[in-house]
Amino acid sequence: MQQAIAILDSGVGGLTVVKEVMRQLPQEKIIYFGDTARAPYGPRAPHEVVQYTHQIVDYLLQFQPKMVVIACNTATAVALDEIRARLSIPVVGVIHPGARAAIKTTRNGVIGVIGTEGTIKSNAYEYALRQISPYVRVVSEPCPKLASLVESGQFYTEHTRSVVEQSLQRLKSEPMDCLILGCTHYPFLSDAISDVMGPDVTLISSADETAREISTILYHKGMLATSNSIPIHQFLCSGDPVLFKQIAQSWLNEQIRVSPVVWQVPHII
Amino acid sequence: MQQAIAILDSGVGGLTVVKEVMRQLPQEKIIYFGDTARAPYGPRAPHEVVQYTHQIVDYLLQFQPKMVVIACNTATAVALDEIRARLSIPVVGVIHPGARAAIKTTRNGVIGVIGTEGTIKSNAYEYALRQISPYVRVVSEPCPKLASLVESGQFYTEHTRSVVEQSLQRLKSEPMDCLILGCTHYPFLSDAISDVMGPDVTLISSADETAREISTILYHKGMLATSNSIPIHQFLCSGDPVLFKQIAQSWLNEQIRVSPVVWQVPHII
Repeated sequence: MQQAIAILDSGVGGLTVVKEVMRQLPQEKIIYFGDTARAPYGPRAPHEVVQYTHQIVDYLLQFQPKMVVIACNTATAVALDEIRARLSIPVVGVIHPGARAAIKTTRNGVIGVIGTEGTIKSNAYEYALRQISPYVRVVSEPCPKLASLVESGQFYTEHTRSVVEQSLQRLKSEPMDCLILGCTHYPFLSDAISDVMGPDVTLISSADETAREISTILYHKGMLATSNSIPIHQFLCSGDPVLFKQIAQSWLNEQIRVSPVVWQVPHII
Repeated sequence: MQQAIAILDSGVGGLTVVKEVMRQLPQEKIIYFGDTARAPYGPRAPHEVVQYTHQIVDYLLQFQPKMVVIACNTATAVALDEIRARLSIPVVGVIHPGARAAIKTTRNGVIGVIGTEGTIKSNAYEYALRQISPYVRVVSEPCPKLASLVESGQFYTEHTRSVVEQSLQRLKSEPMDCLILGCTHYPFLSDAISDVMGPDVTLISSADETAREISTILYHKGMLATSNSIPIHQFLCSGDPVLFKQIAQSWLNEQIRVSPVVWQVPHII
């Protein structure tokens, strides 16, 4: 099936999902939307995030995608069920894939989760983990400062390192053996996070795991791309396309074209 | 949904899937069928394996499972599509989950596969891998002696170690960075296989990965078990129940009850 996979995020975080889809499913065409004008979603009220997510999905539907991926944990936490109920194509979020990978990985049953304030407040990971296995212990920590660091392109600075260290301080004393990066922005910072948490804590990237589940679902629905030609992806963003392009090209290690989208009419549900 | 997951294999190999389902989905009830009277399937003609698989599936359908898992690579390679087309419940095989995990894991694009003669001859892994990503190189090797070692309960003997070493000799010179254990019996021998292949080769257990995909599919279909009570699993085998029970209890680290099943009427499709 040659239609694109639509992937959306509050900003550049969903590019971590894009990179893994490009690697794990090199025949699939991607259309990406980064709502950079309104990022980050983490501190926003749930009803606002729900409204924005509907608006982006509506926008993306004009491209007739075969699947929609909500590559933002905050939006997945509050809007996944509604979007899934509304569309007839498969809708994939980023929370359950990370939860499942953590349950596969943990040996001692203690799982850490970091995410935006919105994601952690929603208890979405705890709910997803306990829905699958009531025997795990979940230790969560909001890290409100991390997504903005990524949106501004600061991955490897001294300042970043020190913010990461502060953000994880409480978690370090917990006996977890894996930590879910419960925000698609965090794989940009995985070197720093890994340094702080040490070698005994396996990092679970919800991005990597989501790419894998996209592959599983497309296969089980008979919807994998069958062409051997190299797909040309499309990137859209609502904010500054120059900064977006710079971050995206450096992360994807590839030249891309970015089209700006301007929100003109307020979206009413 | 409180119905059981039906898991079938030529013998005890599928217990590697059972163990992971018990760990990753502790609320799910399992009904397992090991066709130990006719194991191994590896050297059998494809039409015979197809016939046996239909027969076991028919037998298991009386328990009204919510999903069927063909936890045998040889049977998946030749019978998955037919069984899937015939049933209205989800049918999961063990080849695609391993293939997807290998694509996620490999960094150099060279993937090794070991399996029975039947699995390797069918090229099912090569097909599954290339269907997802045409850019990987696949190096396959049939290991006809390994499944029988497991069926006879020889996991850690000197003889086992030497058979494993001989079986993998050709593969060792290939530059792969991951090796798919393309037979559900092989995780029983993973210590020996890992010793021979060395620390730079990641072993991919199709069993672990299948459990994860079972979780994905049940979730996406809204079919996860919702009860918090501990499920009582059922184990059936067509051969010697004493040897089966001994191997199963040692592998699962749990007391189980085994019911023998005697094939009486030849099965006609």
